Amino acid sequence: MKPVKVGICGLGTVGGGTFNVLTRNAKDIARRAGREIIIEQVATRHPNPNVDTGTVAVTDDVKNVYTNPEIDVVVELIGGYTIAKDVVLGAIENGKHVVTANKALIAVHGDEIFAAAEAKGVSVMYEAAVAGGIPVIKAVREGLAANRINWLAGIINGTGNFILTEMRDKGRDFADVLAEAQALGYAEADPTFDVEGIDAAHKLTILSSIAYGIPLQFERCYTEGISKVTPEDVEYADELGYRIKHLGVSRRTERGIDLRVHPTMIPVGRPIATVDGVLNAVMVNGDAVGDTLYVGAGAGAEPTASAVVADIVDIARGYDAPAHASVNHLAFDKIEDVQVLPIEEIETAYYLRLQVEDKAGVLASVATILSERGINIEALIQKEPKSEETKAQIILLTHKVMEKQMNDAITAIEALSSTVGSVTRIRVEHLN
Amino acid sequence: MKPVKVGICGLGTVGGGTFNVLTRNAKDIARRAGREIIIEQVATRHPNPNVDTGTVAVTDDVKNVYTNPEIDVVVELIGGYTIAKDVVLGAIENGKHVVTANKALIAVHGDEIFAAAEAKGVSVMYEAAVAGGIPVIKAVREGLAANRINWLAGIINGTGNFILTEMRDKGRDFADVLAEAQALGYAEADPTFDVEGIDAAHKLTILSSIAYGIPLQFERCYTEGISKVTPEDVEYADELGYRIKHLGVSRRTERGIDLRVHPTMIPVGRPIATVDGVLNAVMVNGDAVGDTLYVGAGAGAEPTASAVVADIVDIARGYDAPAHASVNHLAFDKIEDVQVLPIEEIETAYYLRLQVEDKAGVLASVATILSERGINIEALIQKEPKSEETKAQIILLTHKVMEKQMNDAITAIEALSSTVGSVTRIRVEHLN
Repeated sequence: MKPVKVGICGLGTVGGGTFNVLTRNAKDIARRAGREIIIEQVATRHPNPNVDTGTVAVTDDVKNVYTNPEIDVVVELIGGYTIAKDVVLGAIENGKHVVTANKALIAVHGDEIFAAAEAKGVSVMYEAAVAGGIPVIKAVREGLAANRINWLAGIINGTGNFILTEMRDKGRDFADVLAEAQALGYAEADPTFDVEGIDAAHKLTILSSIAYGIPLQFERCYTEGISKVTPEDVEYADELGYRIKHLGVSRRTERGIDLRVHPTMIPVGRPIATVDGVLNAVMVNGDAVGDTLYVGAGAGAEPTASAVVADIVDIARGYDAPAHASVNHLAFDKIEDVQVLPIEEIETAYYLRLQVEDKAGVLASVATILSERGINIEALIQKEPKSEETKAQIILLTHKVMEKQMNDAITAIEALSSTVGSVTRIRVEHLN
Repeated sequence: MKPVKVGICGLGTVGGGTFNVLTRNAKDIARRAGREIIIEQVATRHPNPNVDTGTVAVTDDVKNVYTNPEIDVVVELIGGYTIAKDVVLGAIENGKHVVTANKALIAVHGDEIFAAAEAKGVSVMYEAAVAGGIPVIKAVREGLAANRINWLAGIINGTGNFILTEMRDKGRDFADVLAEAQALGYAEADPTFDVEGIDAAHKLTILSSIAYGIPLQFERCYTEGISKVTPEDVEYADELGYRIKHLGVSRRTERGIDLRVHPTMIPVGRPIATVDGVLNAVMVNGDAVGDTLYVGAGAGAEPTASAVVADIVDIARGYDAPAHASVNHLAFDKIEDVQVLPIEEIETAYYLRLQVEDKAGVLASVATILSERGINIEALIQKEPKSEETKAQIILLTHKVMEKQMNDAITAIEALSSTVGSVTRIRVEHLN
């Protein structure tokens, strides 16, 4: 069968990994795809010391790739929104299929890109955009196609998971571990995308669109980072039988869709709670299948390349099939415009930690505030002041309640004269 | 687009689940498949009280389904090798695609069935045959297509995992838990297929074929059940930081393929070690992606139906595409005849437990036997006799060694005058 010819734009970490995997495993990949996959051209401005491009044509202008009439599939591995978007739209315009690992581009401009692709009858594949090498896009779009998806939750940023794991294992604080992660190359010099949850929000936005058949709504995703998680909270979580993870959570409710990334306490008995280090994990609950869990490397040259190349193989296998034989870009053929709930409207359980004056009646006042708002307490620890201190700590877990009621309760608790400073709040998900 | 018409043969647990999921989620499934999926006919000899077949035609003769000219896809959910094989081959003969959940049929007769399907240009899909609702066939055949798979390991029998979990959680013995599992309906009246590992061997055979591109070789799979695992071993495993799971293990080595199902000790830090109860889990290691893990329900009406219906959706989506656009039945287009190693030739680490006379020099004799055969000891516990006993126990973990060397060492240890009875041996896999 006629080979499929690929042009790779970007030869950084993932581009280099893709080049190397396609080259090293060429024989097995051809046996799986039913035809040879040939790297026809590469666009890069900087040579990658880990890649020997051999006889493959190299250009420094991406336009040479996406307009190259020899090329069937353009692989966009540049990142960002500018050149990457030109490459993807340019490739589509020239009738080429596209594979990308660019979560930001898909989460923010996916609707425009998929519309252009559908008009041209080409596919834009993006398995590598979510959870690196874990084939979770394929699982949700195809493997769970029988199901009405109820909810999904994921540890989808390896940097954040590494930091939280180190904080717990070694009792270290956030800033300390972040500095080390930067030195090790696990975290960027500007860590905002990772630790403030923006990267995770991009991925969660994509996952929830393909889970529920709704438009990409990145701008409505609630995003809260992990920089305020303290070693104290990590320790209390342990004591209560929980782990703190930076979780993307999305749930279908009667009132709309939850879409949120925040530090989250998870019962230690749930397998996702013990997925540690730089690993990623995604849980998906469907009405027929129940809970499923997918774990693996969420980043890195070859794990991400694994997903990129799987997409290329899918395109190669179905290269001369009619366009409708490909999976819909957002899983469903017609997208339903379902509302994303504002964070005040979501329902979840909470962990609260507050410092109080160590005197009689304080605990009763706090309990009354919660009870008046219909908030039930599931567990409570009161820590007496250490010898040199005068403040006690109250740590409690609540049952599920709507966030705005919890906001109201926290305001009232903070207004008590016996409360010192502000209340720490971490959402709790039992994932069932 | 023209609907796809399905005929379901068998309306038991999985057949009923499939009928109900296809009916309940028909609208969403059509949005995903790009066309309607209609249940045209059902063959069953016994009504299923959980299913309302409504206006769907019901026959008691499967031949009416697989020869029905209206039907595009025949779904075989009868089980076993006899009628099920007639249905599958009959459907293929009549030019219909097939979906089956029948692991035994695929593991034993798959090569014949796939050859017939390829001659007719139809697909035989079998996601539900391995690990129920977990889309692991899709992950290995498609999601990890970039990779040279190095090894895989799975908890792929829910009954066995339930029994081992109960034994550990409650300190109960095998026979006791099995009786309860039978009463609860988790285990069959004849539990041989589950507890002796035959069911797991069927599934492992299928997984390793699609992982390495080798023929189905069920008859060469080494199979050892869990009936001899004692509460004592479960407890010592815990003490050493391990869990005992009934694991299917397959590894690509330079000398051939490992293919074996047996009780296995796994370090507790590996997420698969804590997958408990009736859940299934499969770890797959690829050269690019590293380790990936897939967890979910391995059995049950709707989890299994989830996989069956996903296969139907795949067929429906690509219904009028050329046959080569479908995934190869065993993942690769040409199958390589690689040798499956006899169990004596595999390399693994071991847990040994032996009862010895409590006298000086016994430990030294055992250590000498191991050392003379190049077997290194990683950990050792010696348990002094309890007050009423005179026998001590030696529990040890070894480094990796070839099984035949371990057999030889065990024979020598059992021949020592100070050894009482036979040596208990459990293989240890670090899964890295």
